[in-house]
Amino acid sequence: MSEVYAVRRARLRDRCSAAGSTAALVSRPANVRYLAGGAPPGAVLLLGPDTDTLLCAGSPLGDPAEGRLDAELRLTVLPATGGDPAVAAAGVLASAGGAAATGSLAVEEHHLTVVRYRAIGATAPRLRLTDLAGAVEQQRLVKDEEEISCLRIAAEIADQALGELLESILVGRTERHLALELERRLVDHGADGPAFATSVGTGPNSGRNGHRPTDRRVEEGDFLSVGLGADYRGYRCLIGRTFVIGTSPADWQVDLYDLVFAAQRAGREGLVPGAGCRDVDRAARQPLEAAGHAEGLAARTGHGVGLEIDEDPQLTPAAMGKLDACVPVTVGPGVHLPGRGGVRIDDTLVVRPEADGGPELLTITTKELLAL
Amino acid sequence: MSEVYAVRRARLRDRCSAAGSTAALVSRPANVRYLAGGAPPGAVLLLGPDTDTLLCAGSPLGDPAEGRLDAELRLTVLPATGGDPAVAAAGVLASAGGAAATGSLAVEEHHLTVVRYRAIGATAPRLRLTDLAGAVEQQRLVKDEEEISCLRIAAEIADQALGELLESILVGRTERHLALELERRLVDHGADGPAFATSVGTGPNSGRNGHRPTDRRVEEGDFLSVGLGADYRGYRCLIGRTFVIGTSPADWQVDLYDLVFAAQRAGREGLVPGAGCRDVDRAARQPLEAAGHAEGLAARTGHGVGLEIDEDPQLTPAAMGKLDACVPVTVGPGVHLPGRGGVRIDDTLVVRPEADGGPELLTITTKELLAL
Repeated sequence: MSEVYAVRRARLRDRCSAAGSTAALVSRPANVRYLAGGAPPGAVLLLGPDTDTLLCAGSPLGDPAEGRLDAELRLTVLPATGGDPAVAAAGVLASAGGAAATGSLAVEEHHLTVVRYRAIGATAPRLRLTDLAGAVEQQRLVKDEEEISCLRIAAEIADQALGELLESILVGRTERHLALELERRLVDHGADGPAFATSVGTGPNSGRNGHRPTDRRVEEGDFLSVGLGADYRGYRCLIGRTFVIGTSPADWQVDLYDLVFAAQRAGREGLVPGAGCRDVDRAARQPLEAAGHAEGLAARTGHGVGLEIDEDPQLTPAAMGKLDACVPVTVGPGVHLPGRGGVRIDDTLVVRPEADGGPELLTITTKELLAL
Repeated sequence: MSEVYAVRRARLRDRCSAAGSTAALVSRPANVRYLAGGAPPGAVLLLGPDTDTLLCAGSPLGDPAEGRLDAELRLTVLPATGGDPAVAAAGVLASAGGAAATGSLAVEEHHLTVVRYRAIGATAPRLRLTDLAGAVEQQRLVKDEEEISCLRIAAEIADQALGELLESILVGRTERHLALELERRLVDHGADGPAFATSVGTGPNSGRNGHRPTDRRVEEGDFLSVGLGADYRGYRCLIGRTFVIGTSPADWQVDLYDLVFAAQRAGREGLVPGAGCRDVDRAARQPLEAAGHAEGLAARTGHGVGLEIDEDPQLTPAAMGKLDACVPVTVGPGVHLPGRGGVRIDDTLVVRPEADGGPELLTITTKELLAL
């Protein structure tokens, strides 16, 4: 497994050299974890011309949820009061002398604050700072089978947690309690934690994108929409489902559900290698717009997942890129009718060529409209 | 209540004017909430020469956990795809013309990334960007009685959650489960959520600073240390306690507990207005060092709390400041013996003059060594 990280770092180093940088400083936590196997809080990774060093403040606790550091990496533990590891990394380069001290250092300008950036510059004034930009994020887009297998387990865990919840009595319980119970079940089934704050919306709150649970109780006749995910070894998936409470859904509920279901299926079916991200978005968006729900639709109908619950690619009307094989994405359109509620259906899938059976559905909980 | 926010903003505006800035852009979420009453995700606050505007992307959901926006504020809702509200704020200033367009804008360089900072500069090239630095954090140090009352309720909630846990059977349960149960109880008692990730450490994990719960089960004879806190209306407190499992603690456990207890009491007793932060730290640190535990002590023995669980002041050996009345701080020294476990005792208190009875203890759960 250690070799995986070395290969990833070599790829990044090649890219930096080609762009004329002597060294690179990676500070964004998910990027550090991708390249180093783990990311103690505040740790940075210095890809030097010769050695790669992980710098962290205070000794890493060995928290399993932070991953397992690649043993091949050089590790520099600064005293807990030793300041910013990114600045210490610049100091290492500056004191290295020769080519390293006078070369250029690529940093993550989209992650470093202005204050940290200036402190790096002041510590190594002869280093030219360049922008690493999204180089690591770009590298993270296409997942290897080990990564996909973590996502698959994360999805299984989320399916199990959700399945158990559906077997319990729901009427009378609050959104907050249901969310907490789901999170407990995720951990019961082996998650390192929830992948993001679990969302449970009932009645008028159902179908709202990113709704945070309130004290509203589940009532007969409600839509109940749930969004959850597991973090398994750092990899995060997402599932969203909407149910109806009581014996028989109202006509408007069935109609709205069927509409969102059809839109979501159209999006899923668009997930083939080479498909434009905007085309997948359009496939999922168009049925909802045609039914008069253009206003209030979310800015996107899906996005990539991996070491972060929200990463590239983005499925939006203006997205420029195309999908590659082995890119995991979510497809989750939704409609919310103010005051009444709504429907969201969200899956995590992996883009696969049709020869391999097409998109691989990771979250397999049924998408029939269940009346609970 | 609305007036409170207007007064806070006026104070900041005065400070900016005195420093020669025409306008200020606040982007750090806790600072936005402090000045605006609420902070939808990604929202920024523009304190203009004439009007104050909160800019956010996509309509604020009205999530109670995000606070309640001051109704006096001008609200600009950008389309969800409309990009960075901070850049939009710079655009507003640039298009205002006259003095505003050619003046200077103070920004939070310790919060803005290099990329956002450059985009602000590019959008308003005639604006001179200056550093707001920690001006809002400074203003947040001393709390008003309304804020302290939120902290008091947060502490009551944490005490209740902890008290209930102590009445349940602990042996055989995992750290993770105990942590999840505590978080559920916090919400049951009215918290908007946990103030930070609840820490539960048993046996060799006990007493470790910031320990993240594992699957280790509580055993007879263990130390059990717990760190938790509630978020109530945005205000966050912290309590840490250590217990022993079984009928009678071992001698080393009693000795270690007494030592940490005495150190923590010494720290608490040092909390008077005008006391140096380093002196409070020394009071809590010295007994532990004298007993041979210098190595492995945390870099600080306490810190401020408020809208963030970790804010100024810092109680460290090198801290330069003095404590003021109405500043809430934690005092929580701890000792961890590798392989054996340890003790942490942590309280949230408010600095008060001796004439008012001295430091006000918010977290009132007993600090006797309970054998559970």
